[in-house]
Amino acid sequence: MNDLSNLGEFGLIDLIKQDTINDHSSVVVGIGDDAAVVLPTPRQLQLLTADMLVEAIHFDLTTTTPWQLGYKAVAVNLSDIAAMGGAPRHAVVSVALPRSIPVDFVVNLYKGMKEICREFGVNIVGGDTVSSPQGLVINVTVTGEVEPANVVLRSGARPGDVVAVTGNLGSSAAGLDLLQAGEWEDDAFAWPLVTAHLTPRPQVKTGQLLAALGATSMDDVSDGLASEAHEIAKASQVGIKLYSDKIPLAPELAGAAAKFNKQAIDYALFGGEDFQLVFTMEQGKYETLQAEHPELRVIRVGEVVDASEGVTLVDETGQVKKLEPRGFNHFRQEE
Amino acid sequence: MNDLSNLGEFGLIDLIKQDTINDHSSVVVGIGDDAAVVLPTPRQLQLLTADMLVEAIHFDLTTTTPWQLGYKAVAVNLSDIAAMGGAPRHAVVSVALPRSIPVDFVVNLYKGMKEICREFGVNIVGGDTVSSPQGLVINVTVTGEVEPANVVLRSGARPGDVVAVTGNLGSSAAGLDLLQAGEWEDDAFAWPLVTAHLTPRPQVKTGQLLAALGATSMDDVSDGLASEAHEIAKASQVGIKLYSDKIPLAPELAGAAAKFNKQAIDYALFGGEDFQLVFTMEQGKYETLQAEHPELRVIRVGEVVDASEGVTLVDETGQVKKLEPRGFNHFRQEE
Repeated sequence: MNDLSNLGEFGLIDLIKQDTINDHSSVVVGIGDDAAVVLPTPRQLQLLTADMLVEAIHFDLTTTTPWQLGYKAVAVNLSDIAAMGGAPRHAVVSVALPRSIPVDFVVNLYKGMKEICREFGVNIVGGDTVSSPQGLVINVTVTGEVEPANVVLRSGARPGDVVAVTGNLGSSAAGLDLLQAGEWEDDAFAWPLVTAHLTPRPQVKTGQLLAALGATSMDDVSDGLASEAHEIAKASQVGIKLYSDKIPLAPELAGAAAKFNKQAIDYALFGGEDFQLVFTMEQGKYETLQAEHPELRVIRVGEVVDASEGVTLVDETGQVKKLEPRGFNHFRQEE
Repeated sequence: MNDLSNLGEFGLIDLIKQDTINDHSSVVVGIGDDAAVVLPTPRQLQLLTADMLVEAIHFDLTTTTPWQLGYKAVAVNLSDIAAMGGAPRHAVVSVALPRSIPVDFVVNLYKGMKEICREFGVNIVGGDTVSSPQGLVINVTVTGEVEPANVVLRSGARPGDVVAVTGNLGSSAAGLDLLQAGEWEDDAFAWPLVTAHLTPRPQVKTGQLLAALGATSMDDVSDGLASEAHEIAKASQVGIKLYSDKIPLAPELAGAAAKFNKQAIDYALFGGEDFQLVFTMEQGKYETLQAEHPELRVIRVGEVVDASEGVTLVDETGQVKKLEPRGFNHFRQEE
């Protein structure tokens, strides 16, 4: 049988190290020595981020292909680099593989990773391949670079700033509901939602542009807009007021919400893994951005207010409600 | 009960981010934003390495404390940086934790990581904390820096070079046998072997010095000397001749070998996780090293020969035998 026990660890490494370098100018040594050797760009700060995806927690192999899983494992990290205003450079990939896993599965997992790396000019320069007694685990660490003047933290939001996002929210969480319920293929609304969940597109170019144009804080929407708003509010010591009727939703979201008897807006506020960016910016700069970059999709969803106001949501009737920071929490008690 | 479900993911992060920065001059932002922001040293190459440790494959929680496990998870990465001649700088730590794990366990796991990071001036700047349906998984990625002139690959060995190691080999594998057999506490020889296995010391300073003194190739002994010799031979397109009576063994190794009815030398050749360095160096430079650095423990174990000779072992009787590259292989068929 063509599984990993025939190929061995070194055979596997030979197989995956093909087509891993997209920017040869910055890689001295890629996969194959004790450590990778890369050339940093002079006068840039370096960014480091990691995400670990665990089977049965982050993904279900009955609802994702290995290619999609590989793509997403890298995408979530590129999204973190985007949220800092940086350009992603190198990836280090560790996988724990059940011994019975077919070689084809592993090849396609890496094909998905290589595809998104090629798209964003990222090099896979190293990692680790080990066996797992049960369940697949993937950890991707990505480095990025950013001009010192352009790095955007969560902590720079100031009262009066605009709060805006870069695209539709809630699609990914609705896509997850569809995947978990199964038989979504017949629903006309399902495809874009499922795609948003399985192969999210990190907003790398947009993040760099927003950083250069003066975003005062930025975060990627990985745990729902409510949770990210709380993170920015806490780090910046400000309040944030969001308007529910401004939050951009995919037209297809209503169909999924109806199917699962949920509110579409709740997917956006409390769902996760959209990997759009939420950012804050001075009013004047935001207007300049809109005037000078009509190609850029940004949607104003609220404003930064004084810390004493907390994080609130103004609903369609004008009522102001406190917004709880609930989103996905790995160690929360089951409710 | 004081387990993770009470604390939550963000409570956990608050707990672990204390005492993670040892070199404040190079860290702009540590744990807590989308990505860490660090300051590279000008005109240095950067090193990147990762190791993933999986419960029931790499460690057994009945034979290691969480502190020891944390220490080792970082140590194995520092060893990879050492093998390139570099100085370790930053660590990014991902852990997948079973929900039932006690908070104390996690605190002690990070204490072990923080201790070795403090010792080597490494900063823990980020990572990911997720839940695991079963079994603990730890991935550590470490960055390092090295002068461009000093980086040592596996590929620079030349016929005539000395082959040497930095310390005793085989202790770790014997320690593992003792731990697995249990009841080792009464064996007078056991303690140093068990310690070598549970809390290996990466040879960081020695690696940097050997690199500066002109090592032509270097590898850390993670899979046994035979396997590392084959890796250097393959990468450098040379042969390597080792002398069994030159290979340094801890005096305690004989006791373990007798207990398990094994050959002591086999632990050194085919065991793993010693995390000493094996390196090659021109004869003249090696003699200078010995004369000028009496404080440095290096032991000549063989010489680099022509590729046509392959990798061989000269036994005590002078017989030359082919040396197989067997060591630990994650996906090998069970024999």
